[in-house]
Amino acid sequence: MARVIVNVMLKPEILDPQGRAVQGALGRLGLTGVTDVRQGKQFVIDLAGELDADRSATLEKLAGELLSNPVIEDFNLTVVE
Amino acid sequence: MARVIVNVMLKPEILDPQGRAVQGALGRLGLTGVTDVRQGKQFVIDLAGELDADRSATLEKLAGELLSNPVIEDFNLTVVE
Repeated sequence: MARVIVNVMLKPEILDPQGRAVQGALGRLGLTGVTDVRQGKQFVIDLAGELDADRSATLEKLAGELLSNPVIEDFNLTVVE
Repeated sequence: MARVIVNVMLKPEILDPQGRAVQGALGRLGLTGVTDVRQGKQFVIDLAGELDADRSATLEKLAGELLSNPVIEDFNLTVVE
């Protein structure tokens, strides 16, 4: 069994109003010195069997096409087990 | 400067229809053997100065009250820098 985590985050140059709202709320609720908050998505994907090169390539491709929007988002993919 | 990452994920016993939809799509698009997908949120929080014990406690509290819904979600908090 393999577990892969894909994190998807807006590109740095794209405005993140959700993150900005969280930044404001954290400040109002007592956390001082918050300079930036970015909000992204995380996918935890469990796979049967080993993650061979073929499936790994497919997953990398789908992370860039299905799980993220390449126009506005970056992703990173980590195999955790 | 400190950077903290808070990952928020539905509790294991809570159904995740978004994750299920992604699981189906990955399969249809050629990734075999996907046994489970869970979708969560990720917050990347940048803080000015050092993260002392006080602010760390405030952040931990707010991660459980503002960033996640403790009824249906778990969170974990990692200091990365």
